[in-house]
Amino acid sequence: MELIKGFSKLSREEKISVIQNTLGLEEEFEQILSDFLHPVDQALFDDFSENTISNFYLPFGVAPNFLIDGELFFVPMVIEESSVVAAASKAASFWANNGGLKTIVHNDIKTGHIWFNWDGDGSILKELELTLADTLKRSISELTKAMEQRGAGIKGMEILPLETQPSSYQLLVSFKTADSMGANFINTCLESMKKPLTDFFVRRQLAAPDIIMAILSNYNPDCLVSCSVSCRIEALKPFAGSLSPAEFAHRFKQAVDIAKDSPNRAVTHNKGIFNGIDAVVIATGNDFRAVEAAGHAYAARDGNYKSLSTCNIDDEYFYFSLELPLALGTVGGLTKLHPLARLSLAMLKNPSAHKLMGIVAAAGLANNFSALAALVTTGIQKGHMKLHLSNILNTFKASKKEKNAAEDFFQNRTVSHNAVKDFLSQLRNR
Amino acid sequence: MELIKGFSKLSREEKISVIQNTLGLEEEFEQILSDFLHPVDQALFDDFSENTISNFYLPFGVAPNFLIDGELFFVPMVIEESSVVAAASKAASFWANNGGLKTIVHNDIKTGHIWFNWDGDGSILKELELTLADTLKRSISELTKAMEQRGAGIKGMEILPLETQPSSYQLLVSFKTADSMGANFINTCLESMKKPLTDFFVRRQLAAPDIIMAILSNYNPDCLVSCSVSCRIEALKPFAGSLSPAEFAHRFKQAVDIAKDSPNRAVTHNKGIFNGIDAVVIATGNDFRAVEAAGHAYAARDGNYKSLSTCNIDDEYFYFSLELPLALGTVGGLTKLHPLARLSLAMLKNPSAHKLMGIVAAAGLANNFSALAALVTTGIQKGHMKLHLSNILNTFKASKKEKNAAEDFFQNRTVSHNAVKDFLSQLRNR
Repeated sequence: MELIKGFSKLSREEKISVIQNTLGLEEEFEQILSDFLHPVDQALFDDFSENTISNFYLPFGVAPNFLIDGELFFVPMVIEESSVVAAASKAASFWANNGGLKTIVHNDIKTGHIWFNWDGDGSILKELELTLADTLKRSISELTKAMEQRGAGIKGMEILPLETQPSSYQLLVSFKTADSMGANFINTCLESMKKPLTDFFVRRQLAAPDIIMAILSNYNPDCLVSCSVSCRIEALKPFAGSLSPAEFAHRFKQAVDIAKDSPNRAVTHNKGIFNGIDAVVIATGNDFRAVEAAGHAYAARDGNYKSLSTCNIDDEYFYFSLELPLALGTVGGLTKLHPLARLSLAMLKNPSAHKLMGIVAAAGLANNFSALAALVTTGIQKGHMKLHLSNILNTFKASKKEKNAAEDFFQNRTVSHNAVKDFLSQLRNR
Repeated sequence: MELIKGFSKLSREEKISVIQNTLGLEEEFEQILSDFLHPVDQALFDDFSENTISNFYLPFGVAPNFLIDGELFFVPMVIEESSVVAAASKAASFWANNGGLKTIVHNDIKTGHIWFNWDGDGSILKELELTLADTLKRSISELTKAMEQRGAGIKGMEILPLETQPSSYQLLVSFKTADSMGANFINTCLESMKKPLTDFFVRRQLAAPDIIMAILSNYNPDCLVSCSVSCRIEALKPFAGSLSPAEFAHRFKQAVDIAKDSPNRAVTHNKGIFNGIDAVVIATGNDFRAVEAAGHAYAARDGNYKSLSTCNIDDEYFYFSLELPLALGTVGGLTKLHPLARLSLAMLKNPSAHKLMGIVAAAGLANNFSALAALVTTGIQKGHMKLHLSNILNTFKASKKEKNAAEDFFQNRTVSHNAVKDFLSQLRNR
C-alpha cells in the first residue's frame, strides 16, 4: 500500500474503487455501500462530513408514553443497543401512571474562553476587566445583535489566572444562545474578539497579550437540568418481582448509593443514563460527544467520579432524580438540516431548547430506572437476551412452538441473527 | 393525548399511523421515514432495537493514509460533525510522512462485580477469598470454556469492602475476552455466579450474602492503549502558518498543558479526541457510550479532570501522545451483524481487538493534533466554515465564480444547505 494523494478530490465511485483495489476487496463492497444511500437526497448527507461513501444506519425507534411536566410525548431514540428503547418505554409508562416525570432547567449559560499569556502586573487586568468587557462586547455587536433580540448573547466576562502557569490567563466569556446549541456562534464571537483584545492593550500602551487560542468550552455546569420522579413505595410493586416493594426500594437505593461511592460502578451506572440521553441527542441532530464530555466531567466535579442520579426513600415515598448539564439546540446545526432530526423535533412538538433539555434528561432517568430495577431483581441479562431473541424470532415469523424451542435452545447460547436463522432452518428442515 | 397501550405490539405502519394521528402530523411524515429504510434488509436493523420505524443516517466517511505501526490503513469514520474526517485525514497524511503513528496496548483486562451485603467478620472473607475464587470459577467452567481456549476467561477475583457502606462488598472479577468486547460474556458469567456464591457461604454454615447486583464495569483502566507521534520540530512547518515551527510547537504544547491544568478547557480538548474515537467506534459496530464513559472517568482518575493527551518538546523534537482505556471488540455484538460494521472491519483488514484499539486511539490523536494545530494558529472557525460551505457548494455544482461570490457572502453569515441553495438560486436568477 502506498500513500494516496488527493483522495478527497476523487468522486465517490473513484474513492470506493481506490479502496477496493488497494485492499483487494470483493465486488460486493460497492454494492453494500450503495444499498445504504438515500434514494432521493444523498447529497444532503454527503454535505455533513467529508470523504463520504455511504451512510451508517442506526435504528430509529420510539418510546411512547413519556409524561413530562404534565405533557405526553413520543420520544424518538436512535440507538444500536438492544433493550434501551424497551427499557425507556417500560419506565415511561410506569411513571406516566405515577405522577409523571418533572423537570427543571436551572440555567442555560454556556461559556467559552480566550487563553492568553501576559507578563504584566495581574492586578491591572482585574482593574481593566469591566472596561475590557464593555469594549469587546461593543466590538462584536454586529455578530451578537440577532441573539440579543432573542434575549441571548454575551452575559458576562471575567479574567482568570491559570494558577499552575504563571502569566497565563483565560478571558472567560458567558453566553446565552437561545434555542441554538451555539457552538458556531460562540466560536465566531470569541475568534472575532481576538484582535479587539490585542488592540485594547496596545491602545493603553500595555504589552500586547500573546493569544494562544479562543474556543468554546463544552463544560457547562451552568447549563443544568434536573429530572425527578416520586411515588408511594407500594406503587413500585410491578418492578419488585418476588421482593416486597419496600425491599425493592431499599435495594434500588443501595444500588444508586454504591454508584455514588464507587467510581468503578459509577461509570457503568452513568453509561446507562447516557444510553437514554444520547439516543435522543442523536435523534434530534445534537452533538453527543459534547453532551458526554460535559456530563462525565460533571460527574467528577468534586474530585470523585460518581453517579449522576440520586435516590431517597422515607417510610412511604420513593424519590429518584437525575441532574446534569445539557447544552442542546432545537435550531441550527443539523437540527433542521437532517430530515430525521427535523422529524424527531416535530414528534416532540417542536420544543424549545429548554424543553428538549427536560425531555433528554427524562430519557436518561427512565433508562437508569429500568436498568437498576432489573439489576437489583432478576439481573439485566434475562430481559436483554430474551428481548434480543424475541426481536429476531419475529423477523423470521417464528410460530409459538418455534419460539418456545428457540428460548430453550438459546438459554445458554449466544443470541445472534445468524445463529437464530440457522436454528430455525434446522428446525424447519427436520 | 392519552397513554397508549401495546405500542410495541403494533406493526411499523400502525406505529407510524398512531404517532401521526395523535400529533396531527403531515402525510409526508410516513414518506420521510420510509425513504430511510434499507431496500433489502430492513428486518436486520429492526432487530437491533425496539419500536423501530426507520433508520437514522450518519455519514460514513473514510480517512486515508493512516500509517499505524508501519501499516497503512483507510480508517472508516461515522460522524455527523463537519471537518472531523478532513482533520483526521490531514493529520494522518502528515504523520505518514513523518514516521507514522505508534501504538502500544498495555493490557486488556476488563472487570465486573457482584455487590453484596454481609454482616459477618470481614476477615473471614479475606481468608476464604482464594477458595471462593476457585469454587466460583469451576461453577461456571462450561460458560468460560470457549474463551479459555482462546487464552481468555476469568483472570482474577478479589473481595473489596466498600469503605463508605459498612458490610457492603464487591467481588471484583477480572476478565480477558479475546477479540470480543465481552459485555454479554461478562454479565452472563457474573449472573451465573450469584447462586454458587450464596451456596458457598451456606455450605460453610455462614450467613448467606445479600446480593444486590452483578454487572460488568465499563471502567477499565487496565484495558489501556497509547498512541504517539514524534518528529523534528522543523518538520511541523506545514502547520505553523506565519509562525516559526518552534513557536508553533511551543504554542501547541501550551495548549495541551492548559488542558492538563484547566478542567474547563480539558472537557473540550477531550471532546475533540472523542470526535475521532467515536467515529471509528461507531463505524466498527462498537458501543460509544461505554468508550466515552470509561475515557472521561479515566481523565478524572486522579481527582482533577484533565487532558488525555500529552505534549513534550526538547530542542529538536516534538512528541505528542494519547493514552486511554478502550474496550473494543472485532467479533460479537454488532461487529459482524451490521453490514457496514463488517465492511468497516474489512477495510481495516479484519484486525484483532488489540489492533483496533490502536487504530481507534490513532484516530483520536490525529483529530486532537489537527484541532490544536488550527486552534493555536488561525482558529478553528475558518477551516470549519470554509469546508462546510465548500461541501455544500460542490453539491450544487457551483462554478468557480459562484464559489467566490458565496465565500464573500457567507463570511459573516451562517452556512447551511438551504441558505446556500437560496443564495445560488438568487445568483443564478439574476
